[in-house]
Amino acid sequence: MTHTGTPVTVLGLGMMGGALAGAFLRAGHPTTVWNRTAAKADDLVARGATLAASPSAAIAASPLVVVCVSDYDAVTDVLDGPLDGRVVVNLTSGTPTRARALAEEVAGRGGGYLDGGIMAVPDAVGTPDAIIAYSGLRSLHDAHRSTLDILGTCLHLGDDPGLSATHEMATLVLMWGMLDGFLNGVAILGTAGVPPTAYVPIARTAIDTVAGWLPGYARQVEEGVYPADDGTVDTHLSVMAHVIEESESLGVNADLPRLAKALTERAVTAGHGSSGYAALVEQFRQA
Amino acid sequence: MTHTGTPVTVLGLGMMGGALAGAFLRAGHPTTVWNRTAAKADDLVARGATLAASPSAAIAASPLVVVCVSDYDAVTDVLDGPLDGRVVVNLTSGTPTRARALAEEVAGRGGGYLDGGIMAVPDAVGTPDAIIAYSGLRSLHDAHRSTLDILGTCLHLGDDPGLSATHEMATLVLMWGMLDGFLNGVAILGTAGVPPTAYVPIARTAIDTVAGWLPGYARQVEEGVYPADDGTVDTHLSVMAHVIEESESLGVNADLPRLAKALTERAVTAGHGSSGYAALVEQFRQA
Ligand SMILES: NC(=O)c1ccc[n+]([C@@H]2O[C@H](COP(=O)([O-])OP(=O)(O)OC[C@H]3O[C@@H](n4cnc5c(N)ncnc54)[C@H](OP(=O)(O)O)[C@@H]3O)[C@@H](O)[C@H]2O)c1
Ligand SMILES: NC(=O)c1ccc[n+]([C@@H]2O[C@H](COP(=O)([O-])OP(=O)(O)OC[C@H]3O[C@@H](n4cnc5c(N)ncnc54)[C@H](OP(=O)(O)O)[C@@H]3O)[C@@H](O)[C@H]2O)c1
Repeated sequence: MTHTGTPVTVLGLGMMGGALAGAFLRAGHPTTVWNRTAAKADDLVARGATLAASPSAAIAASPLVVVCVSDYDAVTDVLDGPLDGRVVVNLTSGTPTRARALAEEVAGRGGGYLDGGIMAVPDAVGTPDAIIAYSGLRSLHDAHRSTLDILGTCLHLGDDPGLSATHEMATLVLMWGMLDGFLNGVAILGTAGVPPTAYVPIARTAIDTVAGWLPGYARQVEEGVYPADDGTVDTHLSVMAHVIEESESLGVNADLPRLAKALTERAVTAGHGSSGYAALVEQFRQA
Repeated sequence: MTHTGTPVTVLGLGMMGGALAGAFLRAGHPTTVWNRTAAKADDLVARGATLAASPSAAIAASPLVVVCVSDYDAVTDVLDGPLDGRVVVNLTSGTPTRARALAEEVAGRGGGYLDGGIMAVPDAVGTPDAIIAYSGLRSLHDAHRSTLDILGTCLHLGDDPGLSATHEMATLVLMWGMLDGFLNGVAILGTAGVPPTAYVPIARTAIDTVAGWLPGYARQVEEGVYPADDGTVDTHLSVMAHVIEESESLGVNADLPRLAKALTERAVTAGHGSSGYAALVEQFRQA
């Protein structure tokens, strides 16, 4: 493989880091890698990557340093040595608070900082299907855009380095809500002998239906009025009570509908019984 | 309007019942209606519906009786008088247990029973976009298929009248999980000044990504093995902890990620730390 383009370093070769380094190699970038457990680099080295002996040696090797480890404590462990003239692209999941703190620390050590949230699984990395949402100085993002484009479709959210983690938090709670809802549905249907694969097309229909409501709900939240174009909060509440009761009698976990009911009850108490479901946003805004 | 086709009765003219009666009228069926609050029939009567003086008079008027009220207690209130030769199509949300009990009661009173779950909002009723999942004797469903087709796309789930409510429960928990996840995300982004409408396309990408995982997750559950093709349960757990911590410091409700974390912790305790997220189904199967 001929190596062209900016030399890049990837710190962390777990499921996601390995996919990132693989995408750079496929695109022909000179790629230096490091991982705490060195054996995870073997396959990448066989495909042309250079294994560095230490994180600081890996950082010294390239102007662009991509970090993707478990969490921010691990990021602190690997971001070792001088960072002058380096741009650190941190694709590790974390919180806005820690992203902002790390951006300051990197700046203090002479480096530039971009934070990114990967909205994809490792298999999609290196294709346009992998959306990666960056935050941090737009000038930095734009300067490295052609290299970052290799990993997936770039989205720049703003100069505040915390924005990417804020967006990631928002998509994660949505993702967990969806996945838990799906698995809860699988468990409910299992009691009637319906196989999970038979549930998939029905779940897909429900998902598309709900996804179709979201633009309207978003506008309602922006305007602060929640007309009940579909069902009212009161109707949801009564249906929730039945779903919980039946889940209990089926011996299926009822924690998710119980949580939904608790939030819905608070919305009723706040005077939103005859509002639409988007009124629940007010409950999510308070601890 | 010329009236053709089977005469139909609609009991309950709330948001959904009104839409059902409206669809029958548009299709030219002789339509008898009844609602506890009679004024809700005014618009339908102006469009050609016949208002019955009582539920039993409404039931006597047509061989096919559609019921759509708040809940099963209300169904019991309105299903008054003899049911000989009637087919009751109950589109009220409820539980499989009550659907089966009502099917028996209707049979005992000389009627046929179909249960149905409407997977759509009232506006979609009368179009193929409204999926209605029926359960109860297939012969009854097939005999009335051409009339039921007016309301939306028919799906027959099986002869057990409880199946429709079981499927509805499954899609409801998925729907609440998704909606709560979305509104939680709106609240999180609100703390960074990101407007809900700006979140919609990002949420849509996340939803499509997660929807793409479901066929694989369903197969894993069917096989009882959960390879971590994407992230592990351990990784999810550590990310959840950070999301909760940050939500607390932002003053945003953290109940949804807290619930996800509690279930995930139980999956880790059950030995699934390095499994994929589908392993959580085992937690949903127990109370
Ligand atoms: N997988 C996904 O689908 C996905 C999607 C979006 C975002 N993400 C995010 O991407 C990040 C990585 O996820 P992953 O799936 O790749 O996880 P993973 O497979 O568990 O890999 C974790 C990586 O972090 C390293 N690490 C952990 N603690 C360390 C420490 N103290 N010092 C040095 N290295 C350390 C591990 O090194 P060892 O090999 O030595 O253990 C490994 O390289 C996470 O923040 C995750 O939330 C993942
Ligand atoms: N709306 C949706 O998007 C949607 C979607 C799928 C399924 N559903 C299901 O459809 C059913 C109806 O929902 P909806 O949105 O139409 O609710 P709704 O607008 O609140 O209407 C409720 C209806 O039930 C009647 N009712 C309640 N208690 C009664 C009683 N004891 N005796 C006689 N009538 C009584 C009401 O009569 P009054 O007018 O006299 O109050 C009204 O006609 C629910 O089971 C709901 O879960 C709704």
